[in-house]
Amino acid sequence: MSQAKIAIIMGSKSDLVIMQDAADVLKELGVDYEMTVVSAHRTPDRMFSYARAAADRGIKVIIAGAGGAAHLPGMVASLTHLPVIGVPVKSSNSIDGWDSILSILQMPNGIPVATVALNAAKNAGILAAQILSTADEYIVANLKAFKEDLAKKVEESAKSMEG
Amino acid sequence: MSQAKIAIIMGSKSDLVIMQDAADVLKELGVDYEMTVVSAHRTPDRMFSYARAAADRGIKVIIAGAGGAAHLPGMVASLTHLPVIGVPVKSSNSIDGWDSILSILQMPNGIPVATVALNAAKNAGILAAQILSTADEYIVANLKAFKEDLAKKVEESAKSMEG
Amino acid sequence: MSQAKIAIIMGSKSDLVIMQDAADVLKELGVDYEMTVVSAHRTPDRMFSYARAAADRGIKVIIAGAGGAAHLPGMVASLTHLPVIGVPVKSSNSIDGWDSILSILQMPNGIPVATVALNAAKNAGILAAQILSTADEYIVANLKAFKEDLAKKVEESAKSMEG
Amino acid sequence: MSQAKIAIIMGSKSDLVIMQDAADVLKELGVDYEMTVVSAHRTPDRMFSYARAAADRGIKVIIAGAGGAAHLPGMVASLTHLPVIGVPVKSSNSIDGWDSILSILQMPNGIPVATVALNAAKNAGILAAQILSTADEYIVANLKAFKEDLAKKVEESAKSMEG
Amino acid sequence: MSQAKIAIIMGSKSDLVIMQDAADVLKELGVDYEMTVVSAHRTPDRMFSYARAAADRGIKVIIAGAGGAAHLPGMVASLTHLPVIGVPVKSSNSIDGWDSILSILQMPNGIPVATVALNAAKNAGILAAQILSTADEYIVANLKAFKEDLAKKVEESAKSMEG
Amino acid sequence: MSQAKIAIIMGSKSDLVIMQDAADVLKELGVDYEMTVVSAHRTPDRMFSYARAAADRGIKVIIAGAGGAAHLPGMVASLTHLPVIGVPVKSSNSIDGWDSILSILQMPNGIPVATVALNAAKNAGILAAQILSTADEYIVANLKAFKEDLAKKVEESAKSMEG
Amino acid sequence: MSQAKIAIIMGSKSDLVIMQDAADVLKELGVDYEMTVVSAHRTPDRMFSYARAAADRGIKVIIAGAGGAAHLPGMVASLTHLPVIGVPVKSSNSIDGWDSILSILQMPNGIPVATVALNAAKNAGILAAQILSTADEYIVANLKAFKEDLAKKVEESAKSMEG
Amino acid sequence: MSQAKIAIIMGSKSDLVIMQDAADVLKELGVDYEMTVVSAHRTPDRMFSYARAAADRGIKVIIAGAGGAAHLPGMVASLTHLPVIGVPVKSSNSIDGWDSILSILQMPNGIPVATVALNAAKNAGILAAQILSTADEYIVANLKAFKEDLAKKVEESAKSMEG
Repeated sequence: MSQAKIAIIMGSKSDLVIMQDAADVLKELGVDYEMTVVSAHRTPDRMFSYARAAADRGIKVIIAGAGGAAHLPGMVASLTHLPVIGVPVKSSNSIDGWDSILSILQMPNGIPVATVALNAAKNAGILAAQILSTADEYIVANLKAFKEDLAKKVEESAKSMEG
Repeated sequence: MSQAKIAIIMGSKSDLVIMQDAADVLKELGVDYEMTVVSAHRTPDRMFSYARAAADRGIKVIIAGAGGAAHLPGMVASLTHLPVIGVPVKSSNSIDGWDSILSILQMPNGIPVATVALNAAKNAGILAAQILSTADEYIVANLKAFKEDLAKKVEESAKSMEG
Repeated sequence: MSQAKIAIIMGSKSDLVIMQDAADVLKELGVDYEMTVVSAHRTPDRMFSYARAAADRGIKVIIAGAGGAAHLPGMVASLTHLPVIGVPVKSSNSIDGWDSILSILQMPNGIPVATVALNAAKNAGILAAQILSTADEYIVANLKAFKEDLAKKVEESAKSMEG
Repeated sequence: MSQAKIAIIMGSKSDLVIMQDAADVLKELGVDYEMTVVSAHRTPDRMFSYARAAADRGIKVIIAGAGGAAHLPGMVASLTHLPVIGVPVKSSNSIDGWDSILSILQMPNGIPVATVALNAAKNAGILAAQILSTADEYIVANLKAFKEDLAKKVEESAKSMEG
Repeated sequence: MSQAKIAIIMGSKSDLVIMQDAADVLKELGVDYEMTVVSAHRTPDRMFSYARAAADRGIKVIIAGAGGAAHLPGMVASLTHLPVIGVPVKSSNSIDGWDSILSILQMPNGIPVATVALNAAKNAGILAAQILSTADEYIVANLKAFKEDLAKKVEESAKSMEG
Repeated sequence: MSQAKIAIIMGSKSDLVIMQDAADVLKELGVDYEMTVVSAHRTPDRMFSYARAAADRGIKVIIAGAGGAAHLPGMVASLTHLPVIGVPVKSSNSIDGWDSILSILQMPNGIPVATVALNAAKNAGILAAQILSTADEYIVANLKAFKEDLAKKVEESAKSMEG
Repeated sequence: MSQAKIAIIMGSKSDLVIMQDAADVLKELGVDYEMTVVSAHRTPDRMFSYARAAADRGIKVIIAGAGGAAHLPGMVASLTHLPVIGVPVKSSNSIDGWDSILSILQMPNGIPVATVALNAAKNAGILAAQILSTADEYIVANLKAFKEDLAKKVEESAKSMEG
Repeated sequence: MSQAKIAIIMGSKSDLVIMQDAADVLKELGVDYEMTVVSAHRTPDRMFSYARAAADRGIKVIIAGAGGAAHLPGMVASLTHLPVIGVPVKSSNSIDGWDSILSILQMPNGIPVATVALNAAKNAGILAAQILSTADEYIVANLKAFKEDLAKKVEESAKSMEG
């Protein structure tokens, strides 16, 4: 069904305002993605079938964002051998984000989730591209250009502040 | 297979040292239970089938204990309409228990988990008995006796301290 | 005096903006309730008589919401053998909700409070219905329909996001 | 029954190891006290009658120590107009003492509890003496001597360190 | 110079918006007070002379409010034998109030500060009145009326909610 | 110099007791690694040259463990386009691990670190293998066998507990 | 290139709104400074050369502000023998400032960072002046005048509040 | 009385086990110091006279260590224009060190304390030496040698680990 190598999923439509950053940076880095809603708690069957089928559909990395008692990234990781990147979302029902972070980060030995900073969907996208880049020189080149661009912007800020 | 009305499950065999308290108090209160290991992350299929089948087997309440990024209580709650009681376990890989508590407590609207205090498996057992007691006068009587016993012990302590 | 099986009480009139969610979901699930203000600290006598009389009036479950040093749920639990559900309210005098959560959750062995997430009065209502459903097939049916509805809404979100 | 002006109460016999410090310092400061066990959760009736009767028995200040979801100091304060001093006890079921502190400290407007540091029963005793000293010059003199003694000990440490 | 028995001091003029509550409730309870600014860090000499002279001027209780690394209550307590009530203020430079609370609450053994809840200057005023009331029946009567009034308001809320 | 595809580095020799788990699981999964000490703060030049040279030496993923103000993972990530996995180590100078976690997790947008749980070097090793497995079917097979083994062990625990 | 003795650097242009306070107070205290943007994560080479060259350019103290996983102060401290003052900035991607504080404060033994309060760039400026004042009587005089001015303002507040 | 340029003071004799590290590293770096006990809360007069006299006695930097509600560093900073380095000590009455850290770090604008990591008296000593080194080339040389030695030890660890 999909040619995309990266799947971006989120626990709720309301997480899109954060998770869109992952999509945008993947586009910028020249990596195809698919994006949908999968709720661990409200659609456990959908989560099971989605996670179990992902590798066979050609997905290489799953980015999962969720807030509060955020079980989506960890449960997806339990259902696939693919690397799973977790984005703790500071949703409205979250306690300053601590619940989202700890429910995603503190996975037991055996089932890792690659956790990024609170709301840092952009970094999740970059990390997914870095993972693919371990076997794709085109993405390596894009990542290097991206890094140079980051430096260039800081140097411009520096010049303007130094006057 | 089971006549028990209460199921006690835990994410790891090592949680038994805590979870046994639930079993013991249920026995004291005259309530049958069954007890086993179900890991959300290491045996997701087992968790699915266990949680989905529980109601039909006659289970009325599920007590689930887990530590760290503790997804078992919440995931079981997503898979059944039965009331689920969550016991945050301060396991060795936990950050002072905060991760266990927040991963169990902070469930999104729609899928509650009845959370008890850190390591408080005994209270989980009492709560399960209280739930059954809403339709069982025999357990009501046992709970009242249990409460009177708690008071009696405090009054004895008081007497001995007052000299 | 009351035919209701669920009592919703709160420490202050100002908690109603949160606690109304419990009432609304109980209505949706076809469960009768009563609702009033009972303050542990400002009306301790009222709390005593309310909690002590609840079971004899036919109440089966008490939902108690409070903020800050939230003693209402735990004190009510000490005064009745009924299951008590505690809703930590992030009131204006609360420290990010931590005080509300810990004063409700961390009950000593012997007197459990079934704690739900911060401000999650809706989940308290669902949990109360689940408790009644252990002896009421009509509520079981309503809970199953409620769960299916949750899933349906996520699937619609998914379709609209996938385009 | 009692001639004591200070009542020291605690939620559990196991708190005595901490609360004894209050008794010891009161003795040192020449203030009579009584001491007993009163549990908010296991003996709510006893707590009610104890707190309601205290003022008429001649008690002037109540020191209450408790751990976990520590409701004793706040509930006693709701039941009497006497000043209540709360000692958060880091009991075995406490989360590093945070639950004890917040359940005692964060009382709503109208019902104060004079909270001291975690496990600081000694300071609770001194504070009780300070309160009585507002109308008792004998205790003032003892408090001044106590303070001078504190300073003297530090000066001796200083001398020995400076060599 | 002063006839007041209660001194209300604060670390900065900007704390007045919180500390005024202490003054207001003392007025309501018929207790005279004086109020001024004393900064531990910006006017250490003024703090020394103010705290050292307070008892001789007839002050019986000092209420001290401060935010951030809040040293005023503890330092005043080190300089007088009078009971000192500390109000942790959630000032603009505070980390959610945690710094204010811990710097006031966690005093070492020997020098207690009677700490009230974050921003709870009203409770500091009530506590000061309670302390004076240990030797003043007029204030006892006012405190009892105050408590009855609290209860009455809750009962009115209850009636209006029950409809 | 190296044929290894995974580099395991740590801020101090004393982290080896934790980081060895990464090495052990990589061996179990059939992945070559190299391991050494690189301190961000004590050997910044060594860190620069190590991180800058890693990709050209054939390294595909860097696992970096550090405690306290743990800058090693983030700084290495700033110096290479390779995916970097961070292991927060609860070292002796750490505040319950919170400093290690936050210094590694909360990277700014543009420079992700794939953070695993506190002390979870084993999960860092598995995640590194998962990353390589996106282009290596041999490792996929090993990961699938590893996952099956995890499940088998739980099922054995379950059988023994169910008796 | 520079005659300034104090260097103020920050991880991002957006930190200027906080860091300007350091510049302003240095001006008030008669101390020359330079100010620019240096990002540890986006411009590691620039950070290296800046920090390594600072002492030879005549810089005596470096003030470094950063937010989130704030590595700039600690990394600069690793690259120079000059005293480095760290300002934790509560940036938009920070978790209430805790990440900024802990990543700057909790440096390992051997490489200190003189950390000031959250967002307290003004105090960083004063501290830098205090450091220079250990060998400069002109700055001593300015610091003394500054302190007197702080006191005078409090005394004026006191007078206006006392009426 | 003293020729020392660095004063090391601590709130209690029991802090010496931590604070000795400051003395040891100053000796290693060739800097003279004096060391004594000064308690903000138990000997406020001694603290006043010590802090006020320090500059005139030739002291250039004060290192102050304290635990719990640690007011010593901040109060000393309010009483002198000298730079003050604060060492948060995790004393037995501390809540995991959070109280010590926040009471020292979160000083209001105008009165900085240069805070180092929890228990990091060694870093306080190094920082004091760095401050003196801004006008003393001999200490610069010692600091450079100290830094080289740190690097050398890591490189040796690296070699032994790489085998």
